[in-house]
Amino acid sequence: MLKFSSKVEKCELSPVRKFNPCAAEAKAKGRRIFHLNIGQPDVITPSVFFEAVSSFHAPVLEYAPAPGMPELLEAIKDYFAKIDIKVGTDEMLITTGGGEALDMVMACILDDDDELLVPEPFYANYNTFARVTGGKIRPIPTRAEDGYRYADRSIIEPLINEHTRGIMITNPGNPTGVVLTDEEMRIMVDIAKEHDLFLIGDEVYREYAYDRPAKSLLTFEDAAENIIVLDSVSKRFSACGARIGAVITHNKEFLRQALKLCQGRLCSPTLEQVGSAALYRAATPEYYAGVREEYRRRRDTVVEAFSKIPGAKFRSPDGAFYLMVTLPVDDTEELQYFLLNEFEDNGDTVMYAPGCGFYADSSMGRNEIRVAYVKECDYLVRAIELLGKGIAAYNAKKK
Amino acid sequence: MLKFSSKVEKCELSPVRKFNPCAAEAKAKGRRIFHLNIGQPDVITPSVFFEAVSSFHAPVLEYAPAPGMPELLEAIKDYFAKIDIKVGTDEMLITTGGGEALDMVMACILDDDDELLVPEPFYANYNTFARVTGGKIRPIPTRAEDGYRYADRSIIEPLINEHTRGIMITNPGNPTGVVLTDEEMRIMVDIAKEHDLFLIGDEVYREYAYDRPAKSLLTFEDAAENIIVLDSVSKRFSACGARIGAVITHNKEFLRQALKLCQGRLCSPTLEQVGSAALYRAATPEYYAGVREEYRRRRDTVVEAFSKIPGAKFRSPDGAFYLMVTLPVDDTEELQYFLLNEFEDNGDTVMYAPGCGFYADSSMGRNEIRVAYVKECDYLVRAIELLGKGIAAYNAKKK
Repeated sequence: MLKFSSKVEKCELSPVRKFNPCAAEAKAKGRRIFHLNIGQPDVITPSVFFEAVSSFHAPVLEYAPAPGMPELLEAIKDYFAKIDIKVGTDEMLITTGGGEALDMVMACILDDDDELLVPEPFYANYNTFARVTGGKIRPIPTRAEDGYRYADRSIIEPLINEHTRGIMITNPGNPTGVVLTDEEMRIMVDIAKEHDLFLIGDEVYREYAYDRPAKSLLTFEDAAENIIVLDSVSKRFSACGARIGAVITHNKEFLRQALKLCQGRLCSPTLEQVGSAALYRAATPEYYAGVREEYRRRRDTVVEAFSKIPGAKFRSPDGAFYLMVTLPVDDTEELQYFLLNEFEDNGDTVMYAPGCGFYADSSMGRNEIRVAYVKECDYLVRAIELLGKGIAAYNAKKK
Repeated sequence: MLKFSSKVEKCELSPVRKFNPCAAEAKAKGRRIFHLNIGQPDVITPSVFFEAVSSFHAPVLEYAPAPGMPELLEAIKDYFAKIDIKVGTDEMLITTGGGEALDMVMACILDDDDELLVPEPFYANYNTFARVTGGKIRPIPTRAEDGYRYADRSIIEPLINEHTRGIMITNPGNPTGVVLTDEEMRIMVDIAKEHDLFLIGDEVYREYAYDRPAKSLLTFEDAAENIIVLDSVSKRFSACGARIGAVITHNKEFLRQALKLCQGRLCSPTLEQVGSAALYRAATPEYYAGVREEYRRRRDTVVEAFSKIPGAKFRSPDGAFYLMVTLPVDDTEELQYFLLNEFEDNGDTVMYAPGCGFYADSSMGRNEIRVAYVKECDYLVRAIELLGKGIAAYNAKKK
């Protein structure tokens, strides 16, 4: 019999995808679907990206160096220098998106049955990268009513055992919007140091923290060997389709191990590296501030809109562009089916990401949803209005 | 202690890379190095690629669909239709280069200690993709004096055991240049069917077979479930830096498993898919014939040049653009150090890929080298002339 790997068998298709057939049917019926489920921003990609790509004039589109093109490595080095972080171009590896960065880090540190601690709820795709190594994610439980905060020794330390290889945090957080305070970061760093664990910071939303800058883990020089930072142009520059990311660490042995994987796949795409170097070079504090203000406006908009839904509970996010909301319903997956199959308001309906997809145990988060606020404010207002009406109709029907 | 995965520990840095410090020193001394070691063709990338990329006008560079962009999937479908192979766009997954295609296939089928049979000598990076899964490559031994042919039940069947999950062939072959005959392909397909194994065809050099077209494994419809084909634009269109490849199979369950990995990493780069669709669309039989003739000219050039080196043995390759040569020396790694550190002819010296890097056991292939004939004929002639002079000097010194 043709057999598949037990590891890939343990991976799952995207939890959001199961609503696609219903969404297609709703569209076929003429429904307009408002999407709160997809993290694809509508923010304009800076034109320097396309200009740099179009200006690339070489007769042959050659392989880039396995660890990355010098011009991009230099641009990222300079980006960090501006926020007072000193990293060498030999302390980074360019990856094909944040996805490959995650894949490489997990492949380098996880063996069969090894565990990576991750605050829960977490970005669902982390599971795929962990499971394919034979390892797994062990969730650090948090509570909606505590604002999903996790930097707490009494919660984390009991979860550490002989299989624990690292802790991975998304900061600012997807899906929670949590941004760690300096004190919380110090706690996380100390735990990693004391227990000899890698501390992996997925910092792709770094520039989009609303109230205070999100500090990079790289500022903690006393734990240089433990810390690995993941970066990406996708969200920072609204260039998701470029698939350019980076792994940054002072840990030379980690870099040596990961370089083997870089050499195996030869390189990340050449033109996309050229374009990404231009993005890093051109971005000014004003650019980040402008995009941040746009997301802040949207954040304020969704917070105001959800405050009008009776019984909806949430904490205003500090960063990134996601909001976890606890809804006054029994099951947000069931509600999603209702919204697609039975509900409409002037021909419109709405989609979100059911919360259970962000928990390791899908019996959790049943009354939560994740909203991505990556569209214009008017769109968001209408989407959340639809959701409010849908909840009322759903609960009326259930009575 | 910060620990690394036992799997990544088993991977290796590129075997060619160890000569880089010596090469840098030679360059610093003013030496001009002729490269026969690198498979980066100098053939012009068709301008349609750059035109399509430059003509992409969207305000936001968005994620592509996880399995690939429809326009590229359609273009690949039509490419196969022209060679009388019917594959649906739902029977392909676009990957980030042939590298990711290899990675996905091995992740889908190899568990710890599982084995993939691969004719040896083989492309060294296969090892990385296999080892990172916990599985390994079990070589199918071939002999230089038999022209490295491998389609032989008496060699292959004794290697099959309960750990064997598949057989992977590169056809046309890197590094051997072997192109299977129809009868040999039939043997490989029958072995895979009878033993319930996946048969994976790395067919990235398909268009570059000199004497007869290299048939695709996809033509064997009676083994549709067993066969998985890997494709890439890198060598076909001299677009190595684009990093666009594909996995093609009629096996629906394989596609379902691999889609989980595609969704995990979100997508392959958008612009590169746009450019690659243009490449597939624009390529005519005349385009392939023109490039093939250029490589044939180079093949003939290197064959003639090596025939002037006393004691050099090789078989003229049928396809791809590599040549394995047995040299009249004891150790081609030692010769490479000599060529970089001690030899020069009018200030020039030469690099190749030592043969041992293409064997699972690096005590093998010690007197072999792999040559990539991807440069102009004059360059190749001078490079091989240098090698001949270098061998004479090396052997004179050893006496």
